[in-house]
Amino acid sequence: MYRDRIRLKSLWGRVVSPEEAALLIKDGMTVGMSGFTRAGDAKAVPVALAERAATDPLKITLMTGASLGGDVDAVLAESGVLARRLPFQADPKLRAAINRGEVLFVDQHLSETVELLRSRQMGPIDVAVVEAVAITEEGGIVPTTSVGNTATFAILAEKVIVEINLAQPAELEGLHDIYIPTRRPFREPIPIVRPDSRIGLGAIPVDPAKIAAIVITEKNDSAAANQPGDADTLAIAGHLTEFLGHEVARGRLGRQLGPLQAGIGTIANAVLQGLADGPFSGLTMYSEVLQDSTFDLFEAGKLAFASGSSLTLSAARQRAVLADLDHYKTKLVLRPQEISNHPEIIRRLGIIGINTALECDIYGNVNSTHVNGTHMMNGIGGSGDFARNAYMSIFVTKSLAKGGAISSVVPMVTHVDHCEHDVDVLVTECGLADLRGLAPRERAGLIIDNCMHPRYRALARDYFAAALKRGGQTPHVLEEAFSWHLRLRDSGSMLPA
Amino acid sequence: MYRDRIRLKSLWGRVVSPEEAALLIKDGMTVGMSGFTRAGDAKAVPVALAERAATDPLKITLMTGASLGGDVDAVLAESGVLARRLPFQADPKLRAAINRGEVLFVDQHLSETVELLRSRQMGPIDVAVVEAVAITEEGGIVPTTSVGNTATFAILAEKVIVEINLAQPAELEGLHDIYIPTRRPFREPIPIVRPDSRIGLGAIPVDPAKIAAIVITEKNDSAAANQPGDADTLAIAGHLTEFLGHEVARGRLGRQLGPLQAGIGTIANAVLQGLADGPFSGLTMYSEVLQDSTFDLFEAGKLAFASGSSLTLSAARQRAVLADLDHYKTKLVLRPQEISNHPEIIRRLGIIGINTALECDIYGNVNSTHVNGTHMMNGIGGSGDFARNAYMSIFVTKSLAKGGAISSVVPMVTHVDHCEHDVDVLVTECGLADLRGLAPRERAGLIIDNCMHPRYRALARDYFAAALKRGGQTPHVLEEAFSWHLRLRDSGSMLPA
Repeated sequence: MYRDRIRLKSLWGRVVSPEEAALLIKDGMTVGMSGFTRAGDAKAVPVALAERAATDPLKITLMTGASLGGDVDAVLAESGVLARRLPFQADPKLRAAINRGEVLFVDQHLSETVELLRSRQMGPIDVAVVEAVAITEEGGIVPTTSVGNTATFAILAEKVIVEINLAQPAELEGLHDIYIPTRRPFREPIPIVRPDSRIGLGAIPVDPAKIAAIVITEKNDSAAANQPGDADTLAIAGHLTEFLGHEVARGRLGRQLGPLQAGIGTIANAVLQGLADGPFSGLTMYSEVLQDSTFDLFEAGKLAFASGSSLTLSAARQRAVLADLDHYKTKLVLRPQEISNHPEIIRRLGIIGINTALECDIYGNVNSTHVNGTHMMNGIGGSGDFARNAYMSIFVTKSLAKGGAISSVVPMVTHVDHCEHDVDVLVTECGLADLRGLAPRERAGLIIDNCMHPRYRALARDYFAAALKRGGQTPHVLEEAFSWHLRLRDSGSMLPA
Repeated sequence: MYRDRIRLKSLWGRVVSPEEAALLIKDGMTVGMSGFTRAGDAKAVPVALAERAATDPLKITLMTGASLGGDVDAVLAESGVLARRLPFQADPKLRAAINRGEVLFVDQHLSETVELLRSRQMGPIDVAVVEAVAITEEGGIVPTTSVGNTATFAILAEKVIVEINLAQPAELEGLHDIYIPTRRPFREPIPIVRPDSRIGLGAIPVDPAKIAAIVITEKNDSAAANQPGDADTLAIAGHLTEFLGHEVARGRLGRQLGPLQAGIGTIANAVLQGLADGPFSGLTMYSEVLQDSTFDLFEAGKLAFASGSSLTLSAARQRAVLADLDHYKTKLVLRPQEISNHPEIIRRLGIIGINTALECDIYGNVNSTHVNGTHMMNGIGGSGDFARNAYMSIFVTKSLAKGGAISSVVPMVTHVDHCEHDVDVLVTECGLADLRGLAPRERAGLIIDNCMHPRYRALARDYFAAALKRGGQTPHVLEEAFSWHLRLRDSGSMLPA
């Protein structure tokens, strides 16, 4: 029974069907939903809302932590419910609707959304829909496998719908550390001084009167979408492990390195797994998403503690971790994404940030989001929070895509998410470029030689040589800067016939 | 006499000529010099070094706070002394040498240089050359009109050369607040919670044994290079003042706004002056450079306190302020640029950052540094520290340059220093675009209508319409994206004949 999950008995009467709860959401509203990289997302109310839209059309602004699981973003997009979506998504159908201009997508640094809401530069939030493992005696909402923006959504929303998910184990309670920065101009330092600092509450404090509906669900999180590693990701991990090993050998880093952050996805996950083979010990993570690799490092005895905003795991790992929470609870904490991604903490702790590039250029600028500079993939996510403020900002990518028709290293990226100032180290399966303290002309030589696939190097050297004749701090042949992309479009490959 | 400026008497014997002091600097060394936006720079030793290079060629890596005054960067560049220069410069002759590839320029976020040095990702520093108003009884170095990176350079350097500048009034002592973040992994929060928080020392603590030479100078700082405001800067200031007034009227900001940061230069200075006409009171600044406008706001009774890393003033204002330091000392503090530009503090205080764009595009990406995407102007400076982490990031520019041959608003910027995520408000003399919470397609319409000069609007609308047909989150016609710049190069104007 669900009643032991709702410890404030006066709320028992608010349990309704997802359809009834969804009626609280009306045309034109702004809705904040839980969910961060497929974890801890609201699972029933958004689907009921999409179904209702078939006969009762409506449009909302939907804010989340990050990407949702299942088909929720697809279902909402296809039902025409989404007028505006932020701050991140990763769904192919929603992505297509965004790129057709049918859904307005506001791509934001993940630490910023709730700052904008709190200061009323965006919002207000009409309804929050949040997944919970329990409601406490005081009406506090205990999140499940992610915190994301859930706490601030619930605190700021006019009304809150809680989805109590019986498939999420009650033992998740105690895993969370809910801290909300105090109001400006009286904001105090955020007192995190180590990845394992606990500074907040175990539940989201809301006025129980605002909890307008409770829905009972019983559905697992969607499994992580990561592909297994391959020879290329192994090589990338190898280069990075070797490099960090050198940093340790030179005495710049201790064997515990700095707290690690790794972006979502296959490559970052594989790279983190690779660190198990390095000369490291007592590693810590201060990241946004904790993936399978976090638990591989725990099992390898390399990882001492991991702080994140979500647990996004494969199905097998999900079963194993959720069944063994008492073991992991002393080694893990889940925080609001504002705190996991906070510039203050990232700079203080000296984080080593590892994020994935979609493409990079010979000067080290990185495109994380836009195919051909125009079409959105997922969003910038937290990569900008980390890359700007980290001790060391590392970007990883395979040097080729589409069977070699695309070089991920190009003369000029078609869209810049991370400028050269925020890219310290670039790694592909071909090698690693340590760009720290180098001028653009030096960066170009190193990136071409170390990171670019050999079959594109001569072409890149020709471009760079022609650009050098024109001079400048960052030499370019402006009329040729996107010629590789145009060749790809016209001939199917960035390589000349 | 200078002896009252050197209160540690055992150092009296280290007073030498600039030429003798310069002999401590040898070929291949890394040298850190004081100086931030023309203020508090070493004035004699670098000139002596350049003169020596005529007969005794040598190459050094030169690090400073930011730009130097006088002709120091020019003289050093022309004498061939500079192999590498960072993190900022603003000298036409040095700029030309950089763009010819003769000097390697490493353009860095101004808060980051000393983090890289402290963690030994760059460096070591062989010699620091720092201007001081005095040396204390303990050997502490009291800076003059800037702090910049001086404290960390002096602390980390093998040897320190101090230039005691008798033209800088002794009353500058007490103006500085020298705080160095504690070492990771034990770094504590930086305890600044208001612009007027004082958390450090009045002098730079160094081992007196490291003070290898002292040079006596008597030369004023170079005057600020700002041009007087004109109708365009007045209009920009007017739009921004009106906008901030609306934010106050809506209750999003109090009449004291948030602490203000304004970049170096004519437009930012004029914009800040313009705030004197708004419905504001009790304003504060938490900025890197304090220009004439800071003192205009003090005189207008609008400004309560200003924190900066340098005083960069016109000749007249320099005389007035330096003669009246006792009055200003309770209202001003000068901090290391690491602290004035620290992400932790910028985010905590909720700063309103106002920086100048060289060009921006219809989606709100900003180029602050590269003419035509290739040739360096000055450097990114602190704009990236502020734009990423501020409460609100505002960029200002005139809509036209070169008598209208150049539109500062273009289809796609040729270099990105600030991506759209970091640009909340864009202002030209034509108007203001409030971009908060908007998707790129919405931003384009607003920027074209509000910020672009009317004579370019039809051209931009044609581009945007053609781009929309291709779709995408950020629609572009890739083969036309730089067509305006190419037309300028080929025909002398971005406008078609």
